[in-house]
Amino acid sequence: MTPDDGGSGDSGPGDRNPAGTPSEFRRDPINGRLVLIAPGRSKRPGGFLTRAEGIGREADDAASCPFCPGHENQTPPEIAALRPAGSRPDGPGWRVRVVPNKYPALTEIAAGDREEEPSPGRMAGSGAHEVVIDSPHHDREIDDLPDEDAALTWRVIRDRVGDLEASGGHAYIQVFKNRGREAGASLRHPHTQIAALPLRPPRLAEEMARFEAWASCRDGDCLLCRHLEDEAVSDVRLVHRNRGFTALTPVGSAFPYETRIAPNSHAGSFASLDDRSLVDLAACLRHVLGALKRIGDDPAYNIVLYQAPVDGRSNFPAALFHWHLDIFPLLVRTAGFEWGTGIHINPVAPEEAAAKLRAASRG
Amino acid sequence: MTPDDGGSGDSGPGDRNPAGTPSEFRRDPINGRLVLIAPGRSKRPGGFLTRAEGIGREADDAASCPFCPGHENQTPPEIAALRPAGSRPDGPGWRVRVVPNKYPALTEIAAGDREEEPSPGRMAGSGAHEVVIDSPHHDREIDDLPDEDAALTWRVIRDRVGDLEASGGHAYIQVFKNRGREAGASLRHPHTQIAALPLRPPRLAEEMARFEAWASCRDGDCLLCRHLEDEAVSDVRLVHRNRGFTALTPVGSAFPYETRIAPNSHAGSFASLDDRSLVDLAACLRHVLGALKRIGDDPAYNIVLYQAPVDGRSNFPAALFHWHLDIFPLLVRTAGFEWGTGIHINPVAPEEAAAKLRAASRG
Repeated sequence: MTPDDGGSGDSGPGDRNPAGTPSEFRRDPINGRLVLIAPGRSKRPGGFLTRAEGIGREADDAASCPFCPGHENQTPPEIAALRPAGSRPDGPGWRVRVVPNKYPALTEIAAGDREEEPSPGRMAGSGAHEVVIDSPHHDREIDDLPDEDAALTWRVIRDRVGDLEASGGHAYIQVFKNRGREAGASLRHPHTQIAALPLRPPRLAEEMARFEAWASCRDGDCLLCRHLEDEAVSDVRLVHRNRGFTALTPVGSAFPYETRIAPNSHAGSFASLDDRSLVDLAACLRHVLGALKRIGDDPAYNIVLYQAPVDGRSNFPAALFHWHLDIFPLLVRTAGFEWGTGIHINPVAPEEAAAKLRAASRG
Repeated sequence: MTPDDGGSGDSGPGDRNPAGTPSEFRRDPINGRLVLIAPGRSKRPGGFLTRAEGIGREADDAASCPFCPGHENQTPPEIAALRPAGSRPDGPGWRVRVVPNKYPALTEIAAGDREEEPSPGRMAGSGAHEVVIDSPHHDREIDDLPDEDAALTWRVIRDRVGDLEASGGHAYIQVFKNRGREAGASLRHPHTQIAALPLRPPRLAEEMARFEAWASCRDGDCLLCRHLEDEAVSDVRLVHRNRGFTALTPVGSAFPYETRIAPNSHAGSFASLDDRSLVDLAACLRHVLGALKRIGDDPAYNIVLYQAPVDGRSNFPAALFHWHLDIFPLLVRTAGFEWGTGIHINPVAPEEAAAKLRAASRG
């Protein structure tokens, strides 16, 4: 059977929902997204993407990989790097390296070229678009590294976010990772991207509005702090918890096995994270991504960081924000229903996803 | 080069935007969507999906196709069909056939099973999910048929939409088509889907709000009627125009070669379309999809119908709505940036897309 057809098999209407579980619309309390949890669709043969369609199809030749050590001249000159004292920029020896994206989505615009009066509904796409090469290892994703090593990657990302925030002129720093061809990556060598935007993106604005609405009704309370407490009590969507971080499947998950990782203590800014917390973050991610790898046959995924905007970090309502990482595994395709309605169909209920992720991270 | 890396080649910052065209944020006036037009990303080798990744990968064996004539017993019993008088349901001879989706996203819920007090942020996913088998032809997409034949498919869709609207209990009827594996289709045999929803989807609600806001400032004027007039004057985004319909590339296109088809005369309801207009619609679609096929190496795509909601068809603000079909070609992948920000990066400016579609439809 297939994701979108009437199907083979001579079944009648009576067994149209083999799982026997009715579908349910849910609205996620953090991002306000409406989703349709449809467990009946999880039984479709061929409904889930396989490894053959996913992670294996990026360019994967270490000999020609522009991100591997010794090939530093195949990227634009580095912006930043973690490298031994005295080693020269754009030479080998680095642990983490940051370079400009050669085909950036956001362009640097000289001050003189800015439109004085942009057309209605238009705005220059000015900003920065950088690539963080996670490590010198062509075949080791961030969760394959020891936590202390992965924390070094996050340290460089954190510092780069801080530098972009301090440089002025950007409204929001968007950190994201595309892992696997289905998730938009074309190179196997693990990397993360940083985009500095001249505006607050719609998704962030929606979350901020929800944090603000909650705080105004609850005497300044943080929506996500309270949500983490509630989820810890109910327990059904918890995936992992360590000293610094909690991983859970959002009650309104848009993707199968979608997982949200948030710091246990309120913090809006990723740039202000201390080094010890970076190790906790790496450990939490290692648990979640390792479990996901076992469940989903090493699936493609995106990781997205949501944090407070640059300006107004200490002002209401930005100070209300509680940063988090959302992991979106690419196990089903986004199709006409999703683009048309704005509602994702998710065949795996987040409660089932959490149970499987917990079991897989123990295994 | 690749969609998301620092890149091969020893180029410096000076040639990071080979196209020389700066990026631009735009907000589409009809759906309010924010997009990032980034022509500099169009030059990336490997940046566009190829046929090998797209349409060729669905199940494509006519001998076992559940949608081919003679295999009617491989689907659930038909809901409706266009077939010769006297021919029996679920037998051969049909021209268009409608069957339930065997793994529906929306489930029928018996009245007694409805929750009296659903949890906050939750609602039963009740409704209908049907598949329209476009024609008996396994290998002929709707634009490969003569216009009069394709109009028969649209006639069945129109009538089925009308029946679902009249049946009560549904808030919105969502029509969509997934063409090609990348677009979510698993079967090659052309088909369209109809979902009857218990709520107005977020994307529709956003459009309705824009129609309402426009009408309240402009004495009841229709946003899309005026937009079509404006676009006809400026001409740069027009793709095709016939007696009944206009095809244009939205000024805020999220996808490369995205095209919107709208009736020239104001109409909110797809179910009220007359038979002659269905032929005009088929002809307009044939022009656009034929051009797209030539430009994009037969790409995967989604088609989505936006129309007025079921209830309030004659009430303000629903009567303000002007229905349209949006075609979303799947030539680039949606990745972490898009999921994170809600902003699609589109490497092909809609003005360039329209020029190429016009040229290809003449060719």
